[in-house]
Amino acid sequence: MVSTPAPRGARAARSGPRRITLLGATGSIGRSAADIVQQQPERFVVEAVTANGNAEALAETAKSLGARLAVVADPAAYDDLVAALAGSGIEAAAGAAAVVEAAARPADLVVAGLVGSIGLAPTLAAIEAGADIALANKECLVCAGGLFLAAAERAGVHILPVDSEHNAVFQALDAENCGAVERIVLTASGGPFRTWTHEQMRRATAAEALRHPNWSMGRKISIDSATLMNKGLEVIEAHHLFAAPAEQLEVLVHPQSVVHGMVVYADGSVVAQLGAADMRIPIAHCLAWPERVAVATPRLDLTAVGTLTFEKPDSDRFPSLALAYEALRAGDWATTVLNAANEVAVEAFLDGAIGFLDIASVVRDGLDRAAGARVENGATIADTLALDAAARRYAAEAARRRTVLVG
Amino acid sequence: MVSTPAPRGARAARSGPRRITLLGATGSIGRSAADIVQQQPERFVVEAVTANGNAEALAETAKSLGARLAVVADPAAYDDLVAALAGSGIEAAAGAAAVVEAAARPADLVVAGLVGSIGLAPTLAAIEAGADIALANKECLVCAGGLFLAAAERAGVHILPVDSEHNAVFQALDAENCGAVERIVLTASGGPFRTWTHEQMRRATAAEALRHPNWSMGRKISIDSATLMNKGLEVIEAHHLFAAPAEQLEVLVHPQSVVHGMVVYADGSVVAQLGAADMRIPIAHCLAWPERVAVATPRLDLTAVGTLTFEKPDSDRFPSLALAYEALRAGDWATTVLNAANEVAVEAFLDGAIGFLDIASVVRDGLDRAAGARVENGATIADTLALDAAARRYAAEAARRRTVLVG
Repeated sequence: MVSTPAPRGARAARSGPRRITLLGATGSIGRSAADIVQQQPERFVVEAVTANGNAEALAETAKSLGARLAVVADPAAYDDLVAALAGSGIEAAAGAAAVVEAAARPADLVVAGLVGSIGLAPTLAAIEAGADIALANKECLVCAGGLFLAAAERAGVHILPVDSEHNAVFQALDAENCGAVERIVLTASGGPFRTWTHEQMRRATAAEALRHPNWSMGRKISIDSATLMNKGLEVIEAHHLFAAPAEQLEVLVHPQSVVHGMVVYADGSVVAQLGAADMRIPIAHCLAWPERVAVATPRLDLTAVGTLTFEKPDSDRFPSLALAYEALRAGDWATTVLNAANEVAVEAFLDGAIGFLDIASVVRDGLDRAAGARVENGATIADTLALDAAARRYAAEAARRRTVLVG
Repeated sequence: MVSTPAPRGARAARSGPRRITLLGATGSIGRSAADIVQQQPERFVVEAVTANGNAEALAETAKSLGARLAVVADPAAYDDLVAALAGSGIEAAAGAAAVVEAAARPADLVVAGLVGSIGLAPTLAAIEAGADIALANKECLVCAGGLFLAAAERAGVHILPVDSEHNAVFQALDAENCGAVERIVLTASGGPFRTWTHEQMRRATAAEALRHPNWSMGRKISIDSATLMNKGLEVIEAHHLFAAPAEQLEVLVHPQSVVHGMVVYADGSVVAQLGAADMRIPIAHCLAWPERVAVATPRLDLTAVGTLTFEKPDSDRFPSLALAYEALRAGDWATTVLNAANEVAVEAFLDGAIGFLDIASVVRDGLDRAAGARVENGATIADTLALDAAARRYAAEAARRRTVLVG
């Protein structure tokens, strides 16, 4: 049984512009969202924008979007922000608490574009304040899916997936026929090592792993794409977003990244969303949902692409995907550990401390140690963050052991 | 601007089984529909089944579906039908008027699976009686689209497209966002001559033209697939079904016939329906719409298909497609003539009287002659049938001229 975050059209048609807040406004999701907002200035007004520490870029964004409030998480950037906003009439604030307050300001939709567990508290605050969430911050669902969904249900808000794969599934899902969903398919490019041998992967360098074939992304997510852990985390998110059990969630390697996600119905029909590999497309969908906006995004030209191919992922060379399914079946505690251990392992790989194939081994060690410690699902964000921290310690120790072995 | 036949979910959720009538129950559409009905006996009850002259097959179908009434169009088959139904308690009737009466019996949904202009009157009768129509009889829209849509609107019924391409578009269309549709794409296998040279096509035999790569279909439609006229007729149908102008309708050659249709939205998203090449899939969608049924149809295995390709149709080698767009822009009279002239031309080709490339030339002649005669759009089915008959005479004369030239 599958249910969507909300039936299409459940939100009443609105009059007047939609009030938006951008968390992580200077990151790649935030910049893409700003681009869409600027293309349709009569449809959107911007309440607040936040960033980590880049005061100048944030002030620029705040001014171009006409935001009321700009917040830097890093207090050390406050003076620069105030200076950069001088004369604009835009409020400035700084610090983690100020980011949470910004997220809780009245808004129709909050774009959760933060990266990492730092996004949990502000996103939860936005939900509790009654805003719909355009969710790009995957830790919210991977680390605390149960918590977030319960909060969204209590607040009666929609969680709209920004990630291209989940957004595709959201577009392909017919809310009235969720009971007739047989499978949900997330596609994966297969990453830079799709055709590499096990031995080549063992010796892969960070530079090789960072060469993603289709999407331009950050370093962490590029490595996750190379291990397929990125897809594993997406399977966990899809489980929460679409209330789908692990058995209904399938990953298909599709190197051209044209078909982003599919829904297989019990009558044999498959509905899919396709598009150019540009995050503005799913973001535009979330910003306007349940309507659609006409915006300048790259259009898919299938005759230029020519050929689309599909293959099953190789679980021998990409054990991270199986680890993610295992964690999903175990519960929120396990997905929190999976995510934290993976972050540590990826960092160690990027630092040259462990090999590429050691990433999955470090995650495996972290999961086993947490299982041995009989940890439980977090009941609060604080619990979740404590478990996250413990898992990072486990993983760091595991990575050090491997470094010693490798060294 | 595009509008769908009806918004999803516009029909109230029903209690109890859906009452179905099958027009053309022994043909390929009718047999597929019967298969779906038999798989879900608690969901459907069958009011009437009709066929042309195969009394034995019709009686078999009527008995297996538990229909109340069976009708043969051919009065000569009446006695056989009565004999075959003996003891079943199923009513028997015969003749064209009896088919129309059967179509007008109370039903929730009438499957219009007749082939040719013989389907116009019964399908219109079903609409006027207030039944939704699962439409496979393309002449209804190609010859009399304006008439049929006006009748459906008056009666407040839905026209659900059975054709795989239109059904795909119907599944991909979000009724609430029709205004944000940029393009509608119908895919075409490209037929058996997709890679043939002009010279090879000039000498193509009927046997060669009948070898359709993906679908098992009747002779007429197989030749239409080889000329791409089939896709041209589908463009005309799509215009009526989705209220889309010719400029928004695109044909893409996709030899694997896996993606059946796509909707390109103004935000850059493309939503598509995919499936195995089996008519039971779109028929199951129509029979259950707006719900979906769980039925045993072939499931699409993209990893087994492996590769999907897309290319633009070659208008030089396939002039029929351009003729269809031209007729669509001219009006219902022209699409009636196009369809009638094409039927005559295909028959002449199958008889060996004209060459493969002459088919389009005969249609061209028919359109020119009708334009010269300043014919108008038919206001009634009778007008339409009269124009259809005139176009057949024009085309037969044109075919004879070509036969003399060839001979």
